[in-house]
Amino acid sequence: MPMVVAQAPELTAQAWFNADNEIQLAELRGRVVVLAAFQVLCPNSLSFGVPQALRIHRTFDPKEVAVIGLHATFEHHEAITPAVVKAFIQEHRLKYPIALDRPSKSGPIPETMERYRMRGTPSLILIDKQGVIRKHAFGPVDDLRIGAEIGALTV
Amino acid sequence: MPMVVAQAPELTAQAWFNADNEIQLAELRGRVVVLAAFQVLCPNSLSFGVPQALRIHRTFDPKEVAVIGLHATFEHHEAITPAVVKAFIQEHRLKYPIALDRPSKSGPIPETMERYRMRGTPSLILIDKQGVIRKHAFGPVDDLRIGAEIGALTV
Amino acid sequence: MPMVVAQAPELTAQAWFNADNEIQLAELRGRVVVLAAFQVLCPNSLSFGVPQALRIHRTFDPKEVAVIGLHATFEHHEAITPAVVKAFIQEHRLKYPIALDRPSKSGPIPETMERYRMRGTPSLILIDKQGVIRKHAFGPVDDLRIGAEIGALTV
Amino acid sequence: MPMVVAQAPELTAQAWFNADNEIQLAELRGRVVVLAAFQVLCPNSLSFGVPQALRIHRTFDPKEVAVIGLHATFEHHEAITPAVVKAFIQEHRLKYPIALDRPSKSGPIPETMERYRMRGTPSLILIDKQGVIRKHAFGPVDDLRIGAEIGALTV
Repeated sequence: MPMVVAQAPELTAQAWFNADNEIQLAELRGRVVVLAAFQVLCPNSLSFGVPQALRIHRTFDPKEVAVIGLHATFEHHEAITPAVVKAFIQEHRLKYPIALDRPSKSGPIPETMERYRMRGTPSLILIDKQGVIRKHAFGPVDDLRIGAEIGALTV
Repeated sequence: MPMVVAQAPELTAQAWFNADNEIQLAELRGRVVVLAAFQVLCPNSLSFGVPQALRIHRTFDPKEVAVIGLHATFEHHEAITPAVVKAFIQEHRLKYPIALDRPSKSGPIPETMERYRMRGTPSLILIDKQGVIRKHAFGPVDDLRIGAEIGALTV
Repeated sequence: MPMVVAQAPELTAQAWFNADNEIQLAELRGRVVVLAAFQVLCPNSLSFGVPQALRIHRTFDPKEVAVIGLHATFEHHEAITPAVVKAFIQEHRLKYPIALDRPSKSGPIPETMERYRMRGTPSLILIDKQGVIRKHAFGPVDDLRIGAEIGALTV
Repeated sequence: MPMVVAQAPELTAQAWFNADNEIQLAELRGRVVVLAAFQVLCPNSLSFGVPQALRIHRTFDPKEVAVIGLHATFEHHEAITPAVVKAFIQEHRLKYPIALDRPSKSGPIPETMERYRMRGTPSLILIDKQGVIRKHAFGPVDDLRIGAEIGALTV
């Protein structure tokens, strides 16, 4: 899992769910941000990434830890329309803000996924209170370890 | 859970996946049939129905027990196109034959779901070697119990 | 997993729990018997064998399927006194009859374990209505498969 | 779950396992201490407490986070001899130091359990680098939350 210590790039979205307005990471300074990328047809997103994002959202005070979902449509573009993502969010009762990543003009990988150089879904990125990326993980991540890393960043 | 002892109605499908031709239940006489209805955006289908159908498919000899999936698009019609169902089947590596239920002309419930009076997804229907419905369950079903019921029908 | 098709040897016990009298397999003809051997300090007994025996006991009608536990003290003889087995059964709220296997005069393996040539714990043995051994498994066993085998024997 | 902010009382043990010498909490200043109390016949210790202690031991650097087990024999005194605890530790391959709590002269609750006013098993106590109790939980505890609390104390 690559570890990038760098300022977190801004999110770009073609749509937001569970948010009144577009969210900028810059607004979230002072909070730990958990950016949880998923894809609605990806088995590991369904089994690990989305349930863990739900648990993180339920466990931490949103004033301290902001969970942001990112739907990365990097494959099955013809199938995964915005209506699919919307219905998925509704059916799974996800309540945290979720960005639908903006398609790229130059290839299949959408813009935010590309900026963060994510390898696939699920990807979990921890951003500290100053907006610096502190963890960048692809695939299942252990609850104890991610809890410890979030906990250390909240101090 | 309703128990209907009656001849199993035939399947109607707008498309089949993992099958060279349309499958008729009538061809499957002499085998126990497990008809596993699901919906790709339904959390209980994802957590219980589909994984159990996979386990059943892996556990029994297909010459004795035929697992048939049925995708019932009874909601989110605008979102769940055939391309979504196809991509789901591919991503989850489902290898048993799956019918995409044929839309009804008169309402949101597709034809096979209507004929079987399914209450939602996941639904599990056991059909004996003579084509008679022996179990009709809605929601999660215990592995031990369904195993016992399948086992009794194979004798 | 060895498969022995043979008349099931009788149980010998130094004590019975959850039973008014000593139970003989001969009394259970006409019922399927699930003989579930365990050892209170064995991790796989705790994680797989005992919980599965509890599920079987809860799932089937005891007039059709009799679950009998067998505690096999084949190691840690100095530690595992009858009081330990009794307290374990009470703490885990096991309600099916459990035999404490009778120690052998000639070695560490107790008598019933020796007669059945069990390889360790957990072991699961299925005995049909005529008293014939139909399955003899060591280690974790799949719920669907064991359900199917029990179901087939009840017909 | 009671929260006691106080200096952690010292451990008293009739025996130690996985330790060359008796361990004093005072020696562990500068490390976060996870004191994980269990009882070998307690179902919740087996299902939740012991597996979580193992995961904590596996996840954190022992130079930062010291996991200490405490076997509290507060019931079944006649059954749970030191030999039972020793065999349990060996069978479950627990590698962290474990104290066998010292019996009290005045009642069934052993000394360390009494000093910490534990309500039963499993109990989880977090002690910070200065030796102050920061968490005191009885029963199952969520991995994410305990991870976050440990992580915050390690900073």
